Amino acid sequence: MTAPTWALAIHGGAGTILRAKMTPEKEAAYHEALRRVLDAGQAVLRDGGLAVDAVTAAVVVLEDEPLFNAGRGAVFTSAGEIEMDAAVMDGRNRQAGAVAGIFGPKNPVHVARLVMDSPQVMMAGAAAVELARKAGLPIRDRDYFFTEARWNALQETLKLREAGAAETDPARRHGTVGAVALDLSGNLAAATSTGGMTAKAPGRIGDTPVIGAGTFADNATCAVSATGHGEIFIRWTAGAEIAARIRHAGQTLEDAATVVVMQDLMPNDGSGGVIAVDRAGNIAMPFNCEGMYRGMVRQGHEAQTFIYR
Amino acid sequence: MTAPTWALAIHGGAGTILRAKMTPEKEAAYHEALRRVLDAGQAVLRDGGLAVDAVTAAVVVLEDEPLFNAGRGAVFTSAGEIEMDAAVMDGRNRQAGAVAGIFGPKNPVHVARLVMDSPQVMMAGAAAVELARKAGLPIRDRDYFFTEARWNALQETLKLREAGAAETDPARRHGTVGAVALDLSGNLAAATSTGGMTAKAPGRIGDTPVIGAGTFADNATCAVSATGHGEIFIRWTAGAEIAARIRHAGQTLEDAATVVVMQDLMPNDGSGGVIAVDRAGNIAMPFNCEGMYRGMVRQGHEAQTFIYR
Repeated sequence: MTAPTWALAIHGGAGTILRAKMTPEKEAAYHEALRRVLDAGQAVLRDGGLAVDAVTAAVVVLEDEPLFNAGRGAVFTSAGEIEMDAAVMDGRNRQAGAVAGIFGPKNPVHVARLVMDSPQVMMAGAAAVELARKAGLPIRDRDYFFTEARWNALQETLKLREAGAAETDPARRHGTVGAVALDLSGNLAAATSTGGMTAKAPGRIGDTPVIGAGTFADNATCAVSATGHGEIFIRWTAGAEIAARIRHAGQTLEDAATVVVMQDLMPNDGSGGVIAVDRAGNIAMPFNCEGMYRGMVRQGHEAQTFIYR
Repeated sequence: MTAPTWALAIHGGAGTILRAKMTPEKEAAYHEALRRVLDAGQAVLRDGGLAVDAVTAAVVVLEDEPLFNAGRGAVFTSAGEIEMDAAVMDGRNRQAGAVAGIFGPKNPVHVARLVMDSPQVMMAGAAAVELARKAGLPIRDRDYFFTEARWNALQETLKLREAGAAETDPARRHGTVGAVALDLSGNLAAATSTGGMTAKAPGRIGDTPVIGAGTFADNATCAVSATGHGEIFIRWTAGAEIAARIRHAGQTLEDAATVVVMQDLMPNDGSGGVIAVDRAGNIAMPFNCEGMYRGMVRQGHEAQTFIYR
């Protein structure tokens, strides 16, 4: 047994970064935002709080920050609407909550927590929003979630589609936020939240709220939060597969996460990445595209944030 | 290498059977219906058809038969509505399609097939129904899906809830249909369809459309279709875990499926069962409750149907 330690990793989306479109100011803004997210999560862990509370706190900050595609700043569907997915999983008992296609609640991850504490695991649409309303969670209107940048991205994507051209800017293909944590009691947890893909089909559900795909946590193995081409992450059960490689094949977290991202997902059009943490506080953050907004902090270490390789 | 062979297993729900409520006539009707389901699936496989077409054909018959909780005969939500989930997965390439919370299309499994052939993997509600409508799939009204037995079950469950009593009749807790198959070309596939749990919360999504939980297929390992307390099957990623045990722990299909049903699910309130088939045509059908409507047929063997242990 090693001494109790805590660890936190976060992401703000992968494959969403083109160096050509980045400015020093924008880069600094991303790093600053990621620091605030790490601060929110580690404040919980340092004080002996639960991993599931730490990942929730971190994801709330990511959702509130318009730079990232979740909560405020979420992308638009092809119909010009916003439909958000979120999930949370507690490794202590594998309790899980997920919501799909919701609009209104300020923090979708809080709605996922409500579902986790209900007899359900996954809820869609209006019924999930109603649950949030009844619980008194803050509700926001279209003005709150709307960002000029996402709206312009939708218009450009729709124009490209009309012209029969392929979407070349990965910034419009995906973007998701998430956090994974180990707390001082040895518990793991994961939370993920997203607006999905720009110009996605209305009603489309990605990997974020699919337990075992975009979100997974089990104290016996690891906690995982994914970002990328969700359909492929679902078909390759990304989160569950990383855990299974640790549990059944005796692989390290780093090996298991890297194999899934590089050998399962990448050759099958599954661009993106994952963040993962295990019981010993090891952190893996492999991705197979140009960049992934990410950060990590561990007990006794300085917080670090990254964008590119 | 063994010689090419085909195999098919089907289920019409588990834990839904109380001997006390069963009559010889009813039992005979179930066996007869299961035979028709096997006939539909094996007609495809015998002729060298694809596993994914065989499981679809089998599930269509299960959906059309009011005895089972899927398609015609689906159960009602607490609001008295019908919300159906379905999924299909093709082990050749892990292509998958799933729909959640749909009402209207006569055969939800056909809508899942449409989604499988789209860029999406999972779609919810009205958008999925619209997809079916555009493709010209048959749409039915409430009268078609309505069955007296399911309506009475809802009323009794709601009365029990009002009285603060626990639901004791597992027939009202769950019920799902599904099929898994191996075709003569060595391909595996799975399909699952359900009305969910009687008096379920509107918007609730169970394990059926969650790839890696209630539905999973990969030529490298096995095909799985589950039935039971869906929330637990999601949290334990039932389908993906059976495949992972075969792939990474070298377990047999029978061992992998049995461990998941008996040791992962049962102690965690996960009553139900799975049907599974592997590349060699082995079939496993473990369940941890009183009974599971099920049947199997393999090349060169007589079809068999079962209800109890």
